[in-house]
Amino acid sequence: MELYFLGTGSGVPSKERNVSSLTLRLLEETGAVWMFDCGEGTQQQILHSPIKPRRVEKIFITHLHGDHIYGLPGFLSSRSFQGGTTPLTIYGPEGLQDFVELSLKISGTHLNYEIDFRQIEDGFTEDSPQFEITAHLLEHGLDSYGFLIKEKAQQGALQKEKLEAMGVPPGPIYQTIKNQERTTLEDGTIITRSEVLGAPKPGRSIAILGDTRFKSSHAEWIHGADLLVHEGTFSGKEREMAYEYYHSTVSQAAALAKESEVGRLIVNHLSSRYQTPDIELLSEEAKKIFPETTIAHDHYHVSIPRNNGKES
Amino acid sequence: MELYFLGTGSGVPSKERNVSSLTLRLLEETGAVWMFDCGEGTQQQILHSPIKPRRVEKIFITHLHGDHIYGLPGFLSSRSFQGGTTPLTIYGPEGLQDFVELSLKISGTHLNYEIDFRQIEDGFTEDSPQFEITAHLLEHGLDSYGFLIKEKAQQGALQKEKLEAMGVPPGPIYQTIKNQERTTLEDGTIITRSEVLGAPKPGRSIAILGDTRFKSSHAEWIHGADLLVHEGTFSGKEREMAYEYYHSTVSQAAALAKESEVGRLIVNHLSSRYQTPDIELLSEEAKKIFPETTIAHDHYHVSIPRNNGKES
Ligand SMILES: [Zn+2]
Ligand SMILES: [Zn+2]
Repeated sequence: MELYFLGTGSGVPSKERNVSSLTLRLLEETGAVWMFDCGEGTQQQILHSPIKPRRVEKIFITHLHGDHIYGLPGFLSSRSFQGGTTPLTIYGPEGLQDFVELSLKISGTHLNYEIDFRQIEDGFTEDSPQFEITAHLLEHGLDSYGFLIKEKAQQGALQKEKLEAMGVPPGPIYQTIKNQERTTLEDGTIITRSEVLGAPKPGRSIAILGDTRFKSSHAEWIHGADLLVHEGTFSGKEREMAYEYYHSTVSQAAALAKESEVGRLIVNHLSSRYQTPDIELLSEEAKKIFPETTIAHDHYHVSIPRNNGKES
Repeated sequence: MELYFLGTGSGVPSKERNVSSLTLRLLEETGAVWMFDCGEGTQQQILHSPIKPRRVEKIFITHLHGDHIYGLPGFLSSRSFQGGTTPLTIYGPEGLQDFVELSLKISGTHLNYEIDFRQIEDGFTEDSPQFEITAHLLEHGLDSYGFLIKEKAQQGALQKEKLEAMGVPPGPIYQTIKNQERTTLEDGTIITRSEVLGAPKPGRSIAILGDTRFKSSHAEWIHGADLLVHEGTFSGKEREMAYEYYHSTVSQAAALAKESEVGRLIVNHLSSRYQTPDIELLSEEAKKIFPETTIAHDHYHVSIPRNNGKES
């Protein structure tokens, strides 16, 4: 489980930062990649990354501002051109489907795969055997959402020493014992799975927010996440401007991380006014409030840590 | 008058070439920039070029394929964000206005300038004091156009030696003589402008074609242009594939340049299958047919030469 940031700027691209996109790479878990937002030039950023467009199986759009969606038609076309044939699910607010469909139609683009559009609204939930995904409305002038991705707890490992001590030698029977509640051995012994499994591994949870004003009530649904990705468009000094433009400061992102007791904070969506030297200052500013903060840059990637079991 | 190539690839971007866009910089002539096509990532390419978005006053779209238009909504937004307030004219086939308007509307984008959309069809003409622009239908599966930009002949320079020999000393009167047909001096002498002006400078003409199959009849309207920009998606060996996909080979572009007796040929829209070493071969291939050929690369720029007065 890895996050890979393709674009960490806001509004307009700069030489240092492209507009918004990031991916959640679930290579060990399912082999798939999930994308969050797809600003213009995302497919060009991908060319310089290890991401394969055909591996992207879900795209989540936090909101419809251009810097979060204008790369979508091009990405979808190239995914097809580069051999993508498996279905793709796109999650986003009302209007997104119209934009995508008109863009593809007007350009005469035929895709070699199906798109399943899922319109999101506050409280949207999707459940699968491995993950639960929920969408939460933020505060951003137009509907903008945060997504909470909860990995489900995984079965503990089979405690082989215990089985051997019970006189069960290693073999295919181990898999059978793992797969069912109760297994009867040839000699009549009954083995209950729960007695020979280690503690279940708690699933991780990641909160990825779209553009938003700081709002302390967001801490309620983010609470205890292993990782929080939050925008920090402006420096802490620019609180008023952040409010006026429906954005947050880096300090506010850190304050929310602290309040939410998350394991770690990554800040993205930085204004193009900040150049590399400024970023160091922004980082210090945030770390005073929440030490486990990283200001992301394009192509920054990180394994998702477990939040030391605080809550999962 | 300079051409600046922002993207010279076809279909999908590669590390070497972005998708289609080029600009005609009329800095000496009018101070303005005209853009031809605007594939995804054009605004990112501009960041690494001397082009200022607010200087772009006309955008010509040759056809609606995604690699020629998906950068338009982002470019338009950024032009506004970066202080562009002067009106912009967009020329393109039917459907373009819908794409642009829906993209801006869905993303809640307000521009600080007006857009004037001009729908083009075969034979479209626009006349201004300095230029005549015409659009010509090509052959490309969906409507694709070529544009012929004809600069009008410019007044010759005032021959100062002649005036001095006539006893007219330099001063503001020189400008007056240049501005009107006939000027009466204080001593009653009448000076006829045509007698004291040098030969008029012939205007240049540039043919910029969108995607197209080779068609020798295009030579009719291109004939004698100082510069021809023509796609060369494939190498000369791939004639059949080029035909099948409604494209041209580099050799066909050169053949058309020869047939049209243009001054110079620049080939763009190269398939991403060709890497830097292949391009040298493609260039040799074309030069055998038409020596004055250049295969463009991203950020290639060139002053527009005059075609030695062959035709102007
Ligand atoms: Zn936004
Ligand atoms: Zn095309």
